[in-house]
This record gives sequence, structure tokens and C-alpha cells, in this order.
Amino acid sequence: MTLSKASQHFQESAIRRVGALSGSIPGLISLAAGYPAPDVFPWDDLEAITAQILARHDGNTLQYGATRGYRPLIEHLRTHTLPARGVAANFDEVVITSGSQQGLDLAGRVLIDPGDPVIVELPTYSGAIAAFHNLQASLVGVPQDAEGIDIAALDRTAADLAKQGRPAKFVYVTPNFQNPAGTLMSARRRRELLDAAARHNLLILEDDPYGSIYFEDVTRFEDTRPIKADDAEGRVMYLGSFSKILVPGLRVAWMVAPPAIAQKVELCKQAADISTGVFDQRIVHGALAGGVIDRIAPGLRSHYQAKRTAMERALEANLHGRVKWTSPRGGFFLWIELPEGVDDNSLFERAIKEKVSFVPGSAFFVNGKGHEFARLAFSGISHEQIEQGISRLSAAVQ
Amino acid sequence: MTLSKASQHFQESAIRRVGALSGSIPGLISLAAGYPAPDVFPWDDLEAITAQILARHDGNTLQYGATRGYRPLIEHLRTHTLPARGVAANFDEVVITSGSQQGLDLAGRVLIDPGDPVIVELPTYSGAIAAFHNLQASLVGVPQDAEGIDIAALDRTAADLAKQGRPAKFVYVTPNFQNPAGTLMSARRRRELLDAAARHNLLILEDDPYGSIYFEDVTRFEDTRPIKADDAEGRVMYLGSFSKILVPGLRVAWMVAPPAIAQKVELCKQAADISTGVFDQRIVHGALAGGVIDRIAPGLRSHYQAKRTAMERALEANLHGRVKWTSPRGGFFLWIELPEGVDDNSLFERAIKEKVSFVPGSAFFVNGKGHEFARLAFSGISHEQIEQGISRLSAAVQ
Repeated sequence: MTLSKASQHFQESAIRRVGALSGSIPGLISLAAGYPAPDVFPWDDLEAITAQILARHDGNTLQYGATRGYRPLIEHLRTHTLPARGVAANFDEVVITSGSQQGLDLAGRVLIDPGDPVIVELPTYSGAIAAFHNLQASLVGVPQDAEGIDIAALDRTAADLAKQGRPAKFVYVTPNFQNPAGTLMSARRRRELLDAAARHNLLILEDDPYGSIYFEDVTRFEDTRPIKADDAEGRVMYLGSFSKILVPGLRVAWMVAPPAIAQKVELCKQAADISTGVFDQRIVHGALAGGVIDRIAPGLRSHYQAKRTAMERALEANLHGRVKWTSPRGGFFLWIELPEGVDDNSLFERAIKEKVSFVPGSAFFVNGKGHEFARLAFSGISHEQIEQGISRLSAAVQ
Repeated sequence: MTLSKASQHFQESAIRRVGALSGSIPGLISLAAGYPAPDVFPWDDLEAITAQILARHDGNTLQYGATRGYRPLIEHLRTHTLPARGVAANFDEVVITSGSQQGLDLAGRVLIDPGDPVIVELPTYSGAIAAFHNLQASLVGVPQDAEGIDIAALDRTAADLAKQGRPAKFVYVTPNFQNPAGTLMSARRRRELLDAAARHNLLILEDDPYGSIYFEDVTRFEDTRPIKADDAEGRVMYLGSFSKILVPGLRVAWMVAPPAIAQKVELCKQAADISTGVFDQRIVHGALAGGVIDRIAPGLRSHYQAKRTAMERALEANLHGRVKWTSPRGGFFLWIELPEGVDDNSLFERAIKEKVSFVPGSAFFVNGKGHEFARLAFSGISHEQIEQGISRLSAAVQ
């Protein structure tokens, strides 16, 4: 039995590996899993919506569906959700995917041949690294600063690759509250990125799962405007998701892409899983069209904002002066720089002994670096667990 | 923008293309779509199970799940469903997939490099053709007869490919009520196929979505015994699905494969969609563990058996002596041989004018042939529609 070359490259996601390990240790507090908090899931709404949908006994609810997606969901996205974020999209530009992870995989399959360069931020989302790596992309990292990806470095990298005769297929960014670094890309930097993409004739893959989770004490809605909203040339593929604003257990997300790409994505998806589950899509549509998602959004923002504050206070109380971080303006994560000389993987081993886990920073770097960082998730655990977890982490650092 | 080489090969599934066309013609009767009948969906059970699951407010129901799948579902498959069909499987051999189509795609991604030969039956399932074709496999067809794949032809094909230094990666078969031909592979042929696979050191990908839909007037449960049940050497990858025995709108299926392959499939799936929806999996598990699936199975068998009889009667009444077929012993389809000189695609155009659709036989052939066949689905439509549809088809044939 000979496996495919691609499969010899398959990587386990660091987050999932750490998650599996964490699950096997009783009493461990996980600062690793960036899960949404189940206590803010709209249980009563979902029960009512689900019961209503099934009570209709409409065969189409539980039947095979169109590969593009459930049409009323696409239309609601097109006419309400996307315009509210400044994004105009025709029907032929939208595809419903089984989570945004599938959007990353499908976009990759449509664009990447083995060896093709793909530009990512340093650090970047480990699930994107895994998806592109599994397609045998050559991942090239570009640093970011507090405002987002470094445009001068991007210019150099894109020019170098073009000079080598192997131009980058696209640049992958998460402008809103990046996983893991928490960075909110500034409005100016977004414009500069679009300009740079035009200069180098690059596509942009914009991943936006956290855009609605902005912290109102320091961030305005306008600060989260997608790059796609100003994409006059059709070079942005935009991924949105219901995983963080509703629930991740219904695997529903969407992609907005230039029609030629969207059509290939649809064909690829057709042979990959036929369609995203229609029942899941109808529940999500019910929550979206029924106003549930808009209604709960402010509560989600304040819920995660309070947890961010709790984690920052715990860090100040336990590790003041020993670790550094930029206060996140939204999202699920605190990205800390470890004390001089502390390595992420060694700290992880000590942390496990203290019954706390996190994701080592190097898991988010495609250049083998990042060992001075750690990603701490405050999203899915309680205030008590945050305090206890940071206290244990502090013991591991000492 | 340069698309990947793979995407330049992406093919639309003929079934889906015909389905989309059919949907746009008012009053058309579709003999094309092989959908399960929504009137036999267990609505009351699904309403009760779903309400019970949500009422628990268990956060894990709507959270991200393990990539392998929902553990109680895997365990029920391992300890009940699979043993009942003669298949023994350890935990590390089972992966839950988002429908069997994903199983085809993932198995392909783990095994196929561009240009690799894959052996399929003539005819074979068009969704498998699309999945392997999208991975740039070189598809090689082997004829089948009334007992299944032709072993002598398989021997020659496998030997030829090996002699060329490009041995086949696997042979793909649907032994139970094949889509499209309806063939039930005989017990002897299954043993011969296992022997042939051993001779040529081939893997077998066994797709079994219709195994439970056997027609009790002509078929016994024992006749559907999976090849996997007698796989002493670990060369069979076995795909099972809930789409035909429960509903396809919950995207839940499973793969049983040798551990080394199952592990790669898991890694590939992790980056492809993280996990199959946990909510869907819990509903399916509720139906499985609660006995719903076993309870409704005899009713499904008699439901589809009666529709098969209705379609055969309609064919005899309208097209006696003009078309030929082998009476299917299970499944969703009647595979007819058209009158001498009638081409499947020309007939399709005439049929559309008569407001009836079917899938042209050539869509299921990887060698450009099969234009003398048509696939007629009796599964998802009423007896009246079957009669009316065949009457219209007869008008198109004349």
C-alpha cells in the first residue's frame, strides 16, 4: 500500500493535538481550546427554531441539498448580513461551506498546486497552515506589527517570489482579532494591503470568524470593516462563519469569492461532500432571519470582553512584568510573550504538570520560530477557571 | 489568477447537472434524482430525539467535536451495526465522515497522486468518478456482468497496469445494488474479488449505501454481506451511510479502514472540515441507539420494493420489448438498455420535451461508452409519478 505524496505531508493541527492531550488529564484547565462559551448559546431559540422546522414535515429539510447552499440562507447573507458589513455580493459569488475550515481547504484546492507559494502572516491560524500544508503549498511567512501585516515585508516577499518565477497564489490574512495574535488590522493597513495585492497581482484570502466579537470598550463596529468591502478589483475571497456568533456544532459558514473561483469551489465541494447539511443550514437561517443572531451579538461581545478583562487581571496579578502582551480588542485570545529564556514547548510540559494547557506559540509560525510566545484562550472557560488557569501557568513559569 | 491544475479537471456530476436542469422545468417528473423518499422519513422520532438532545443544554452538543467522530456513535457502530453485518472493527479503524461522498474524497486524497490509476466498474457511481477525477486519478474501467465485476478482466487490467510500472491504487466497487446498474455482487464473486486483490496487492474501496435496502421478495439479508466482513488481510476500506436508511440531510456516514489509512483520513479531514457536525451525529446516534433505524428498515425495504414493482410494471405496459433490464434486487434504480440505435443523450433531449428526466447511461462510464443505457430512479417519487414518468419516457422513445 502506497499512500499519496500529499498524505505524507499531512500534519496534525497543533491545537487539536494539544486538545486531545488536555482531554486525557482529569482536572486540567484548558487555555488551549478556542471554543465559544456554551453558556451563551441561545438554547431556547434553537429549540424553538428546530421544532418549528421539523414540525413542517417538509421533505426538503432532511433531503440532499444544492451544493451552493440553501438558497434563502444565501439570499439573506447577500441582502442583509453582507451589506451590513459593506460587502456587495451577487448570488454567483457566494458558496455555503461546512465551516470556514472547509472554505480554507476548498479555496486551497482551487488555487494551489504542489510547491506553490502561499503568503501567510507570522503568526497565523494553525488550521490554515494545516489546510495549505496538506495541499503541499510552500508557506512563506511575513511579519506583522500592531497594525497588521507588514506591507514593506510583503512587498519584498511577493517581489522575490515573482522574480523566482513562482509568484504567490494568494496572501492569507485574518484582519479582525487574528487567531492567535489578536491583532486588529488598522483601516489604513487594509487599504495598503489591497494596494499591495494590486501591485503584485495577488489574491487575498480574508478569514473573518471573529469580526462580530469586538470589545466595545476599545473598538467600534467600523473598525472591523472587511477588506472585501473595498475590493473593487475582485481579488478578495472572504470567509465568514456562524461558529463564533451562533454555534460551531452546526457546520455552516460562507465564502464570497470572484465568480470564476466560486464556481470552481462549488464543483470541488460537490465531489467533496455533495452539500452542507440542509437541516443545519435551515436552523442557521432561522436564527439569522428571525433576528436571533443580531439580538445575541451584544451579549456575546460583553461576555468575551469581560473574560478578556478577567484574564488580563489574572496575568497582572500573577505574572506582572514577566510576560508581555497587547490587549486584544476583540476575539477569543490573549497572545503573550514569555519571559526571556522561556521556551514555549518546555513551558508547555511544565504547565501540563501544573494541570493547565495552552498552545505553544511556535505552532502558529511557518518559519520554525515563535518559541517565545503562547496563545491563551479565554473564550470557553469560566472566570474562575481563567483565574485558576493563570495561577497555575504562573507556577509553571516560575 | 491561475487556478490549480486539479481545478482545471473539476467535473460537474452528471446527476447534479441533470438535477439542476430538471428543477428549472415546471411539471417535470424526475427519474434522475436518486433521492430517498421523504414520506418514509421518521419525522416523529426525529422531532422527539432532537428535542431531547437540545433540552439537555449540554454544551458539547453544539460545540466543535472530535475529528474521528462522536464517540458513542463510533462505539455503537463498532459493537452493534458492524458486527450485525459480519464486520469487526477496532476504534482506530473507524472515522465518521460528512456523508459517504466525503469518504470517497478523503480515501482518494490519502491514496491518489495525479496520474495514479484507480480501477472502477463499468458502469460506476458518477459521484465517485467526480471525486477521483478531481484528484487527477487515471480511471480505468472493468466490465461487470450479472454477478458483479468481471474477475478475468480485472486480472488483466491490474496486471497490465503493474507491468507499466503504475499499479492501481485501489479498485472501487459497490457490491450491494450498485448505483447505477443495480447489480448485487454474488457471494462467490466477492470471494474472487478478495482473492484477486490479494494476487495483485490491491486495496478495495467498498461503498455500501444501499445494503439495507434489499427487496425481500428476491433477496436475503445474507446476500448483502460486505466484502469487508471477510477481509482477513486488511485490504478493504468500507463506506457505510445513514443517507438511505435514515435521512441524507444529516450529513453522517462512516468509513472502516486499516488503521494506517484511517489515521491519514482523520488528519486529512481535520484540515478539510474539522469534524462532522456534532448535532447531526447525536441525532443519528439517538436514532441508531434508540432502535429507530432497525424499526423502520423493513418498511423502507417494502416501500422501495413496491416502487420497483410499479416501475417494472409501467415499463412492461409502455415499453414492452423495446427496453431491457435486469430486475434489481435492492436499491433505488432501474438500469435500462435502450432500443437499438437510441442514444442516451438524444433521448434525454426528447425526454425533457416530454417533461421527464433520467440520467444518461454514459455518465457512469469512464471509457466514453454506455450511450445505450439510462438510469431510472424510482426511489423518491410516488407510484403515480412513476407511471406518468414512464409513460412520458415511452413517448420520447417512440
